[in-house]
Amino acid sequence: MSSNEVSVKFQPQGKTVRVAPGATMREAVARAGILIDYPCGGQGTCGKCRIRMVGAAPTPTEAESGLLGADALRNGERLACRCSVDQDTTVEIPGTSVLGASYQILGSRGNASKTADPPIWKQYVEMPPPTREDDTPDFERMKRVLGDIRTDTALLRVLPSRLRANGFKGTAVISDDRLIDFEEGNTEAECYAVAFDIGTTTLVAVLLDLVNGGECATASRINPQTGYGDDVLSRILYARDTEGGLERLQEEVLTAVREMITELAAQAGIAPDRIYEVTFAGNTTMQSLLARIDPSPLGESPFVPACREGLVLPSDDFNLGIHPRGQAYILPVIGGFVGGDTVAGILATALDDDPNPVLLVDIGTNGEIVLHHEGRLQATSCAAGPAFEGARIAHGMRAAVGAIEKVRLNAAVEYDTIGGARPVGLCGSALIDVAAELLRNGLVLSQGMMLDADSAPGNVAESVRGRLVVSDDEPAFAIATAEETGIQGPVLLFQRDIRELQLATAAIKAGIAIVLRRAGLQVQDLKRVLVAGAFGNYIRCNNAQRMGLLPHAIDESRIFFVGNTSLAGAQFAATSRNARRRAEEIARAAEHVDLSQDVHFHMEFSEAIFFPEPTEESE
Amino acid sequence: MSSNEVSVKFQPQGKTVRVAPGATMREAVARAGILIDYPCGGQGTCGKCRIRMVGAAPTPTEAESGLLGADALRNGERLACRCSVDQDTTVEIPGTSVLGASYQILGSRGNASKTADPPIWKQYVEMPPPTREDDTPDFERMKRVLGDIRTDTALLRVLPSRLRANGFKGTAVISDDRLIDFEEGNTEAECYAVAFDIGTTTLVAVLLDLVNGGECATASRINPQTGYGDDVLSRILYARDTEGGLERLQEEVLTAVREMITELAAQAGIAPDRIYEVTFAGNTTMQSLLARIDPSPLGESPFVPACREGLVLPSDDFNLGIHPRGQAYILPVIGGFVGGDTVAGILATALDDDPNPVLLVDIGTNGEIVLHHEGRLQATSCAAGPAFEGARIAHGMRAAVGAIEKVRLNAAVEYDTIGGARPVGLCGSALIDVAAELLRNGLVLSQGMMLDADSAPGNVAESVRGRLVVSDDEPAFAIATAEETGIQGPVLLFQRDIRELQLATAAIKAGIAIVLRRAGLQVQDLKRVLVAGAFGNYIRCNNAQRMGLLPHAIDESRIFFVGNTSLAGAQFAATSRNARRRAEEIARAAEHVDLSQDVHFHMEFSEAIFFPEPTEESE
Repeated sequence: MSSNEVSVKFQPQGKTVRVAPGATMREAVARAGILIDYPCGGQGTCGKCRIRMVGAAPTPTEAESGLLGADALRNGERLACRCSVDQDTTVEIPGTSVLGASYQILGSRGNASKTADPPIWKQYVEMPPPTREDDTPDFERMKRVLGDIRTDTALLRVLPSRLRANGFKGTAVISDDRLIDFEEGNTEAECYAVAFDIGTTTLVAVLLDLVNGGECATASRINPQTGYGDDVLSRILYARDTEGGLERLQEEVLTAVREMITELAAQAGIAPDRIYEVTFAGNTTMQSLLARIDPSPLGESPFVPACREGLVLPSDDFNLGIHPRGQAYILPVIGGFVGGDTVAGILATALDDDPNPVLLVDIGTNGEIVLHHEGRLQATSCAAGPAFEGARIAHGMRAAVGAIEKVRLNAAVEYDTIGGARPVGLCGSALIDVAAELLRNGLVLSQGMMLDADSAPGNVAESVRGRLVVSDDEPAFAIATAEETGIQGPVLLFQRDIRELQLATAAIKAGIAIVLRRAGLQVQDLKRVLVAGAFGNYIRCNNAQRMGLLPHAIDESRIFFVGNTSLAGAQFAATSRNARRRAEEIARAAEHVDLSQDVHFHMEFSEAIFFPEPTEESE
Repeated sequence: MSSNEVSVKFQPQGKTVRVAPGATMREAVARAGILIDYPCGGQGTCGKCRIRMVGAAPTPTEAESGLLGADALRNGERLACRCSVDQDTTVEIPGTSVLGASYQILGSRGNASKTADPPIWKQYVEMPPPTREDDTPDFERMKRVLGDIRTDTALLRVLPSRLRANGFKGTAVISDDRLIDFEEGNTEAECYAVAFDIGTTTLVAVLLDLVNGGECATASRINPQTGYGDDVLSRILYARDTEGGLERLQEEVLTAVREMITELAAQAGIAPDRIYEVTFAGNTTMQSLLARIDPSPLGESPFVPACREGLVLPSDDFNLGIHPRGQAYILPVIGGFVGGDTVAGILATALDDDPNPVLLVDIGTNGEIVLHHEGRLQATSCAAGPAFEGARIAHGMRAAVGAIEKVRLNAAVEYDTIGGARPVGLCGSALIDVAAELLRNGLVLSQGMMLDADSAPGNVAESVRGRLVVSDDEPAFAIATAEETGIQGPVLLFQRDIRELQLATAAIKAGIAIVLRRAGLQVQDLKRVLVAGAFGNYIRCNNAQRMGLLPHAIDESRIFFVGNTSLAGAQFAATSRNARRRAEEIARAAEHVDLSQDVHFHMEFSEAIFFPEPTEESE
């Protein structure tokens, strides 16, 4: 662990995260996976993101002084969007600030908040049993208490006996205005959803407690479809050209999804049938394969998706192993190459409400780029390949225990691993670090060539120079030695890994350039750049700029790392129907920019293949 | 066939029916199963039920002269609700008068009529294929032409390849605002629905052509659930007390339903997957068993149904063999004993719009009675038993070929059979005839005892007297002799059959008495009595009055036989979403009267068990 980070512990969620000193509380909250609502877009004007520092609190900002009042400030109250973290601290998040907390209120008061508009809610009810004088139908009797809800024939089949076995007392479960269950006793406290990010390479899932708004468990694994091809196109072709191929790809991802749900429920110690809702965000192809929608047209020009709208499916269509009358929601898409993951990202960052121009760059196997400028949302994607997720890199791996996540070259090679374990391989953030550090030290040239130990500049420390080795006839840089890794060999970055990074970086860099050019903007015009991605939590901004992934012409203070926004957006959609309506609006409003159509793309790409020259660097 | 009836042939439906001279054209239209809209409730004020007499037309009524104008009258145009039938005639029904005809207009013009509001519509569309300049998602492209419709994931799974295989040309099928198919070529002309009356004893179905509003085929059979008990209660107990009993009862009726659909499609020579909608009307228990909803609470006080609302199910839930993404609709119910068949009856007769007080009496295994009086609908039911459907009667049968349907005792015994075949048994209308005729001739006394040949009054013709026989030690009346029936024995009405008729009649008679008493009305106050039922088409009013089934204190001219209104209402619901909304309103508005709760019921019933004395008879 790096010693210059500070820890923030959140109550009542009981989660602790580590951030750089000076990070905003908003960033720490996001890293903890807690969903706080920022109706004003984090501008410090609405006061909705109130938190309380337990112990020493930073000096209040002007916005906080204006909105909170002296008593609250003395009590340690601050705004998550305004205050920063300077030291180890414990923070209380009041229920009123957390998205999803309204369910508890809803459940116990039976009074649906129009603002929260949750897709699922529960209410314990006690009804007078029917008599000859009051022979209202069972479902009608429930509507007297629950308001105007809809029937579900599958539930009606068992409702009469369920009501009578429990003396007309129990907990009503309402999903999307539909009564889906009547559970024995008071189960209001047990109401869960799962949000999935269905990446081309990686699947990530979060179990959400809809009562307190907290995360109960997370799980991730490699998308088993990678066995049928690393990229989107190879899977489309497999589905199109192989008999039963589409069904097989669907079954592969669904099997993983089911296992992850089982794993999440076990981690949290809950019954899987108390999960009522699962939301999925992924690129258009991943979502098509998940829903078993013929993806063939996504594989050929003009790359048209079957449908823009989000899809609602009964959970038994997917056989998810959650509540049998639960639902799955798949986010809407913008176009053939810009999918539900991008819609989720715009939703999670409220990009369309942000001061603009603002750019969202989501770095994954497909890089997605969205520009919000003067009310327009322009979205595109580029095939970056899976390098930043550790795939196609000889010693690459995803951000799991033992992954090297930070690398520094000073007098010696220094690195941190996830979980402090012995090093196993390199995750995305380490790749960015090591590429930047090799460039900075002149060990890799801007065209991408890795020098050998003899050609390295004279000012490079001997211990670093010694890491320039040849392995299997290929130049490589040893980040961890065989001694450090223990039983396995060294962790190496090969010349061809540098080439993969160049291609991945160039795709994103060219994409950003084209999007800005079409809007008549310069990088300098951007008020903010939001960088999303699940490729390791600790990307270092100056290193991403040094190796060209992020534009160097923008000040580091305007670059924000927002984590896995696809997952965050899926979480929003799992907890609020209002968020789903916003997602549908975003999908309709955003314009789909086809990079391959742009006359400048190939030129931009061929220029972007070079790493920035040292002189270009701003530091 | 009776010689004093006249035939009416309908064009373009090609159907011929026979009615008594002087019957209204509305009655003839209803008997032909043609759905005409009477927005004014048949009051002759809206002019919507315009028809044209080919050949001689009756003298126009005042209402017709006022609404139609001289040219139209000369052209033979009349109103179905006003004109009567005096001789054999041919009638043209213009498309504008027929419910459902609007689909044709809708299909070819692509302009949904808000009035018709059909649950299914088709539209042939030709769309420009996607290009790089126009990469709108497939479903979005369809919405450009079809308006704001909803997706169906099952269809989306095949839509992309379907659109491309057909060059983006084909026929969209929209069910309940949901795109359920995109068919090759122009299939606008092939759009069908089936309406079912699910009776306790009898199942009846009609295949409807939604393009011209006509009936294409009909089918009927005994409800196979009768093997588990004649009445509603025995089936409820079977479902409740037998492991898998509910599932078995559902499967029994669904098997018959599937076979009937296959039979209807074969009769009409259409592909079953061009049937997109099936509607069901039955009593509350029949509908519960059909939907596999636990009927136990319907078997014990206070007899509460699971749900009042109509149910919509995907056709594959029932595995109906129609279009795989079609729908089933089960009508809403009023209470535990007054079901979707009664709602359908009120809907079909527009009882709630009729001049009132008006009574609807539906004679089936359950007799349902609805009074509309000063804006209130009061509905009840009584367990009449299946006698009027020919069951529990020794030589009883349903109204099928060979059934004796009319009986007259004059100098000799005269009868008509359905289809003019040799007599096989007695259907409901013949039972009413023979009971009335035996009473009229003094061969059965008012307490129900059948005399023997020696005790018969002296004025009875010898040939009639000779029919009073003893069979298996029981008095019986031979309606058809062994010679007349051919290879089988005579068709007899036994003493115990008379007892069954007494019980069935008494239940309905007592029900009518209680409903009127609660409303503070006398029989004489009723403006009309509508008699519904599928128990033979040719009930004779004076005979039904003579044997006490219908009140004798009301003039025959105010009694109307309206046929199977449960089926007619199901047909309305199959052709119009507006009709469904009306059905839901009716179910909500109607009051459920529990006869068994009424202190007067047992007294009324024990009095009603006697046939009316000859002196009570009005003729």
